[in-house]
Amino acid sequence: MKLRTPFLVLPVLACAVVAGIAAAQPADEPIRPIQPAEVTRPAVVELGKKLFFDPRLSKSGFISCNSCHNLSLGGSDNLQTSIGHNWQRGPINSPTVLNSSMSLAQFWDGRAKDLKEQAGGPIANPGEMAFTHRLALDVIVSIPQYREEFARAFGAGPIDIDRVTEAIAAFEETLVTPNSRFDRWLSGDAGAISAQELAGYQLFKDIGCVRCHNGPAAGGTSFQKMGVVQAYVTTNPAEGRVGVTHDEFDRLRFKVPTLRNVELTYPYFHDGEATTLATAVETMGQLQLGNSFTPEENASIVAFLKSMTGDQPRFEMPLLPPSTPETPRPVPFS
Amino acid sequence: MKLRTPFLVLPVLACAVVAGIAAAQPADEPIRPIQPAEVTRPAVVELGKKLFFDPRLSKSGFISCNSCHNLSLGGSDNLQTSIGHNWQRGPINSPTVLNSSMSLAQFWDGRAKDLKEQAGGPIANPGEMAFTHRLALDVIVSIPQYREEFARAFGAGPIDIDRVTEAIAAFEETLVTPNSRFDRWLSGDAGAISAQELAGYQLFKDIGCVRCHNGPAAGGTSFQKMGVVQAYVTTNPAEGRVGVTHDEFDRLRFKVPTLRNVELTYPYFHDGEATTLATAVETMGQLQLGNSFTPEENASIVAFLKSMTGDQPRFEMPLLPPSTPETPRPVPFS
Repeated sequence: MKLRTPFLVLPVLACAVVAGIAAAQPADEPIRPIQPAEVTRPAVVELGKKLFFDPRLSKSGFISCNSCHNLSLGGSDNLQTSIGHNWQRGPINSPTVLNSSMSLAQFWDGRAKDLKEQAGGPIANPGEMAFTHRLALDVIVSIPQYREEFARAFGAGPIDIDRVTEAIAAFEETLVTPNSRFDRWLSGDAGAISAQELAGYQLFKDIGCVRCHNGPAAGGTSFQKMGVVQAYVTTNPAEGRVGVTHDEFDRLRFKVPTLRNVELTYPYFHDGEATTLATAVETMGQLQLGNSFTPEENASIVAFLKSMTGDQPRFEMPLLPPSTPETPRPVPFS
Repeated sequence: MKLRTPFLVLPVLACAVVAGIAAAQPADEPIRPIQPAEVTRPAVVELGKKLFFDPRLSKSGFISCNSCHNLSLGGSDNLQTSIGHNWQRGPINSPTVLNSSMSLAQFWDGRAKDLKEQAGGPIANPGEMAFTHRLALDVIVSIPQYREEFARAFGAGPIDIDRVTEAIAAFEETLVTPNSRFDRWLSGDAGAISAQELAGYQLFKDIGCVRCHNGPAAGGTSFQKMGVVQAYVTTNPAEGRVGVTHDEFDRLRFKVPTLRNVELTYPYFHDGEATTLATAVETMGQLQLGNSFTPEENASIVAFLKSMTGDQPRFEMPLLPPSTPETPRPVPFS
C-alpha cells in the first residue's frame, strides 16, 4: 500500500488504538491464540519422539525426521530446499513441523490429509529418506526396547507402519508454540506488543493478508494461488494442488503456510526464494494484493510477524535404543 | 583362548571370585570409574552445546558436530564411515565423543592434541563440513544472540575460532558417562554385575585386553598397532599415526578406542568393518593376542563390555538463535 498522503496514515493509527482497546475480546480477532498441547497418551508421544529422531528410518541411517524439521531451528532446516538421500536436492521448501497439526492438510499441496498420513511419506520417498516401510519396520522390530515401547504405547498387536506413523504424529501434535507476545496481547495483555507491532497487525488485517493467514496458526486454513494479482516468477517446477486434484483451477495453488515462528523458518515460499521476512512481505504484498508497502509499513508488518514467535517445544534430547546383531544395517553409499 | 580341558575353566572362575572379593578396592583395577562432569563454566558449556548442534558451521547448513557424533546414538553415527558434505564417504569410522576428554589425543591418529584442537578440524575439512573458520565466524558474528552469549561466556574480546573451539570442547568435556553397572561394581557394589560379566572382565584382564584398554575410558591411553600377532586385512587405506610422526614404526598404529558405551557405538574398528561386538571381540583376540575365544568366552566378554554402558548425557535439546538478514546463507548444492 503506497501511502500517498499523511491523511491515510491516521486511520491506520486510529485502528491500532481501537484494536488495542479490543484486545480483551480476542474472540473478534481472525488470528486465535495457540493453546498448549494436552498430552493424553504420554507413552505414544515419547515413542514418537524417539522415532522422529531416529535416522535408522532412512536407508542411509543418517536422515531422520528432525534432519529437515529440526527442532533446534524452528522445526525447519532453514535451507531453500531440503537435502535428501545421497545429497539429492529436494523439490520444495521444508515446511515447519511446529503447529502443523492445525493445518487443514499436510505438504504444500495438501496431498496428506493429516500428520499421520504425512509421516509415512518421507520415509519411503526415494529423494528423501529413500527407505521402505517394510525395511523401517524390520529395523524397529529388531530392537527389543522398541518392541517394549510399542507394547507400552499401544498394547498387544503388530508393529506396523500405522502405529509408527501414529506415534510420530502424536509427538508432532505436541509441537505447538503458545505464549507468543502476540498471543498474550490477544489474551488481553495490551502491553505485550509494541505500538509498531500493533500497527503492523492492523495493516496486516486492513490490507488483506489476514484473509489467508488466519486461524491459530495464522495460515494452514486454505489453499491459495501463488500469484493472484501478478504472476509469480520462479524456476521451481512445483505445480501445487493440481497434482492432487487434477483440476486446472488448482495450478499453483498451495497450502497457505503458517506465519507462527516465521522469524525462525526462513527462507520463505514453497521455493524458498525469499531469504528475509522483508522480502517475503514485499513480494506477498505485490503478488497477492497488488500493494507496495512503504519501508515503514514493511517494517511494522515484519515486527508484528516476529511477535508471533512462541515458546518453542522444550524436551530432553531422546536417547535411542541400540541396534542388535539382527538389525538391518544402513546402506548409505549405494 | 581355546579352553582344551575343563581344568582350565576353574582358574577363571576362581579368579572371578577373587575379583569379586577385591571389588571394594577398585584402586587395584586397571579400569577406573568415570567421574561425573564438574561444570565450572556453565555459560561456556551452554554456548558450546549450541555450537555443537548448529549446522550453520557447515557449508551446507545441514551438518553439525552432532551429525556424526549423535548424542542420541552414543555420541557416534553408527555408520561404517561418516557422510560428509555432498554425501562424500568419510575415510574412517567416527569415534564417539562420549568420554573423549579422557583420551591422550584426538582423532584415530592422534593428530589433535585435545578436544579444542580437534573441534576446528571437521569444520574446515572439505570432506566433512567443508566450511572455513572465517565463514563460520561470519555466521556466528552476524547473530546478535550469539554475540551476547560469547560476551557472557568469555567477556569482552573478539569472537574467534579459538573461542568457538574452546566452547565446543567445554561442552564435550561434560559428555561423560558415569554410573555404569561396571563402575558401581568397581566402587564396591558386588552385585552390580552378573557372574558372567565378572567372568568376562576376569578373562579380559587375564588374556591381555586390558594392557591396551585401561584407564577410566577403558582405552584412549595409548597408540597401538592394529594387527600385532596377525596382520589386519582391510581395504581401508588409513595408515594410522605414521601420518603424524612420519615414523614407520607408527604405520597402522591407531589410538586405542574407548570401550565405554561400546554397546552403543557400533560398528567397530577404524574401518568400521566389525558390525557386532561378538565379531570385534573375536577379531581382537586373534589379531592382537593370538587367541581364539570359545563361544562362552566371547559371550562373557561381550556381556562384560555391555556392563560398561553408563548414564548417557541428558540435556534439553538446544534452541538455536535465528540467522539475520546479514547472516551468510548456506550453500548446500555447489
